[in-house]
Amino acid sequence: MIKVIVNGCLGKMGKVLTKSIFDDEAFELVAGVSREINETTSYNAYSNILDINEKADVIIDFSNPTTLKDMLTYSKKTKTPLVIATTGYTNEELNMISEHSKEVPVFHSSNMSLGVNLMLKLVEISAKALSNFDIEIIEKHHNRKVDAPSGTALMLANEIQAVLDNEFNFGRHGKNAKRKENEIGIHAVRGGTIVGDHSVIFAGKDEIVELNHTALSKEIFAQGSLQAAKFIVNKENGYYNMKDIVSL
Amino acid sequence: MIKVIVNGCLGKMGKVLTKSIFDDEAFELVAGVSREINETTSYNAYSNILDINEKADVIIDFSNPTTLKDMLTYSKKTKTPLVIATTGYTNEELNMISEHSKEVPVFHSSNMSLGVNLMLKLVEISAKALSNFDIEIIEKHHNRKVDAPSGTALMLANEIQAVLDNEFNFGRHGKNAKRKENEIGIHAVRGGTIVGDHSVIFAGKDEIVELNHTALSKEIFAQGSLQAAKFIVNKENGYYNMKDIVSL
Amino acid sequence: MIKVIVNGCLGKMGKVLTKSIFDDEAFELVAGVSREINETTSYNAYSNILDINEKADVIIDFSNPTTLKDMLTYSKKTKTPLVIATTGYTNEELNMISEHSKEVPVFHSSNMSLGVNLMLKLVEISAKALSNFDIEIIEKHHNRKVDAPSGTALMLANEIQAVLDNEFNFGRHGKNAKRKENEIGIHAVRGGTIVGDHSVIFAGKDEIVELNHTALSKEIFAQGSLQAAKFIVNKENGYYNMKDIVSL
Amino acid sequence: MIKVIVNGCLGKMGKVLTKSIFDDEAFELVAGVSREINETTSYNAYSNILDINEKADVIIDFSNPTTLKDMLTYSKKTKTPLVIATTGYTNEELNMISEHSKEVPVFHSSNMSLGVNLMLKLVEISAKALSNFDIEIIEKHHNRKVDAPSGTALMLANEIQAVLDNEFNFGRHGKNAKRKENEIGIHAVRGGTIVGDHSVIFAGKDEIVELNHTALSKEIFAQGSLQAAKFIVNKENGYYNMKDIVSL
Repeated sequence: MIKVIVNGCLGKMGKVLTKSIFDDEAFELVAGVSREINETTSYNAYSNILDINEKADVIIDFSNPTTLKDMLTYSKKTKTPLVIATTGYTNEELNMISEHSKEVPVFHSSNMSLGVNLMLKLVEISAKALSNFDIEIIEKHHNRKVDAPSGTALMLANEIQAVLDNEFNFGRHGKNAKRKENEIGIHAVRGGTIVGDHSVIFAGKDEIVELNHTALSKEIFAQGSLQAAKFIVNKENGYYNMKDIVSL
Repeated sequence: MIKVIVNGCLGKMGKVLTKSIFDDEAFELVAGVSREINETTSYNAYSNILDINEKADVIIDFSNPTTLKDMLTYSKKTKTPLVIATTGYTNEELNMISEHSKEVPVFHSSNMSLGVNLMLKLVEISAKALSNFDIEIIEKHHNRKVDAPSGTALMLANEIQAVLDNEFNFGRHGKNAKRKENEIGIHAVRGGTIVGDHSVIFAGKDEIVELNHTALSKEIFAQGSLQAAKFIVNKENGYYNMKDIVSL
Repeated sequence: MIKVIVNGCLGKMGKVLTKSIFDDEAFELVAGVSREINETTSYNAYSNILDINEKADVIIDFSNPTTLKDMLTYSKKTKTPLVIATTGYTNEELNMISEHSKEVPVFHSSNMSLGVNLMLKLVEISAKALSNFDIEIIEKHHNRKVDAPSGTALMLANEIQAVLDNEFNFGRHGKNAKRKENEIGIHAVRGGTIVGDHSVIFAGKDEIVELNHTALSKEIFAQGSLQAAKFIVNKENGYYNMKDIVSL
Repeated sequence: MIKVIVNGCLGKMGKVLTKSIFDDEAFELVAGVSREINETTSYNAYSNILDINEKADVIIDFSNPTTLKDMLTYSKKTKTPLVIATTGYTNEELNMISEHSKEVPVFHSSNMSLGVNLMLKLVEISAKALSNFDIEIIEKHHNRKVDAPSGTALMLANEIQAVLDNEFNFGRHGKNAKRKENEIGIHAVRGGTIVGDHSVIFAGKDEIVELNHTALSKEIFAQGSLQAAKFIVNKENGYYNMKDIVSL
């Protein structure tokens, strides 16, 4: 059983994560940290990570950059590996994390979904292998989403563009809308309460390869961070990310 | 076994149809008609339908409007039911067909694909039943198709619009691209050699109904006309179309 | 705004429904009824429907058969239409409901998912229209589901069987596993936390029609009952079910 | 323009390949070889490869093992790279091919579909990355296919089994059909004229990754061999296969 400290335990993602830990027999929540302990918790909660007495195998961090310094201090003192899912760090802070990874194993990713990270890798391989195929991306989200296409669709498109130098086409309409050889069509479907669905279609002469990722809830980010925790507990010191898991 | 005369037997669709008839034990090709008999055929071919001596159960017509008069004359004289897949008739010609149907059973449709016609009906029913769902259409075709969206996608969208009075949206892109309640998103995917694929998505609160039609070749128009032939051989005089088959 | 009384407001589905009502501007929850009021509610809750003073446009019932008599008494006295989603009634109780519908509009269905009910109708129409197509059903559910195939898959298969008198085939394997013309293949996919996904595939010569329903949560049963409520508030006395909505 | 000799030019796949070469501006067919030249060809056809005078950049072989010796002799003499798609070689013949590759670049694969080979690689990567996900395979083929599941489905399942040591389950049915953690469900859908469709589903907690390959005709094997030809014309001597293309 892997003993976990959750930093940011009372935030939106922190609550999803602590629930996921209680539901998973491979993990034990030994303590949570939150700036404000404004509700009762079924586990030991601290307002400062430096006050923690429990020994843990890994810290998972879904908090914000202000907690970084104390977290690194605690991690260094106790030699506890870190899984960092927090975003918004300055370059200086990113350097601190990087330096820290020389003394403690650190896993850092701004998108903890294992599936999405796998997709990025699969799409890169496919774009290289099927370089003469036509590539189109369809993403589907709920009807309240304001921006289009989704950030993840753009991440996928950028991964392909890095290989094939394509142009993006965000919608075809008209009498003279023939496909250019080097474009990626990107289509944003909106409807109902769809959580998030991404398809990358590689269409060639008489064959089609389609890679699809479907998210059913935000819990996948919690699951991804637990996967990262499993990965890092016995690793050498160093700086790891999702690609290290996906390309094992 | 249903005995068939094919009018327009040496045209593109006529050739597909005669092949389909040879492959189907339920049908027998008794004669073909083509203005110009410029190749050898394995069946009796005539340049004018009025010269045919063979008795048939049905005439299937994939020719062009210039052959209409002779075809009606022959059909009336021999009381042979008609399946008409030819397009481009004038209103006067359409009236002649309509008059003719008082004396002989006539089946007339400008799209003989059974599946596409079924889709039109299913989409109409679904739009009525799921009137508060968000509706999106995705069509996929080969990379040489010039126009977008496809005619069939527009037929499907029009069927929905007739029920719900929606607007069409041919592509979303930008920071402020939130879905309007009353729009139908229509997305044209282009790639490889895809023959034709149409999906209509009805997305509501936590449930999605998706209707999909995939065409694998142009033979489906031949198959649809044979289905129509089966339908009409024992019918009363009258004017029938695909909706009569689909709503049996 | 449609004023609603929820009978069975503190049960599992009752809680989902009351939440759905609060989230939907077209509805107002005027009162709830539950045998035991063992928690605080943000709306007026009664242990007996006969004690309710508020006037409502419709009663939605997700309770159990023991509450039927009082509910019918209240509905009759106040002429309030009924949407009944409760299952497990005896024939005698079903007769009482049927009799009641002569004096008050009653909507009764054991599966309130609008999408699933629509699917049943679409599948019936498709089976008639595409009688010579091969039909296969694929259902997908989470990995904890004990039975296979799902009840909904069997409902869909039975709907087809009523039209075409098919046999069911629950899995092909071996050197001599060719498809029989008259069978329906039924495939039960199990994995992860999939809520419920049903596809009916009609495959013919070079064309495929596929009808798919995806459930994202149990809230769809609440949404279906609200759709039923909208449908029934202005109807004549009578006994209605989901097919009346779907075939509008 | 890559100049090609097709060995086995009048066989089933040979005819598909020569047509593909004529349709592709990047390639030129300089000669064909067939034991029996029993029909007129629009290109120079020889009954023995050793009689060929034309200079080529690559030989593509869709013949049979009896032509191997002469082909290797010709390839060695002219230093022409080889793409071998023929199957059924003895170990001795495979050794000859292997030896030959020390002097001339040789590409050898028993399945020339680029997409299927890519799928094998993607599935291997995914199985490693998503080792705690549930994996299910759905394959779809026409209703005349005798065996089930397809050879390709088994190749995909074996690729996964090599990583995760799973059991195969060919169909679930009954009251007590709960999924075992370590199984791969394999489902064989049969219907109409479906050419070949393979999906591998990785279902985890609230996310699903699905990899899909659709074949629209046998021409994909021709296309794959042309891709291999492009790959090999400028390579060092050595023995290559589809994985070398796919993992570029």
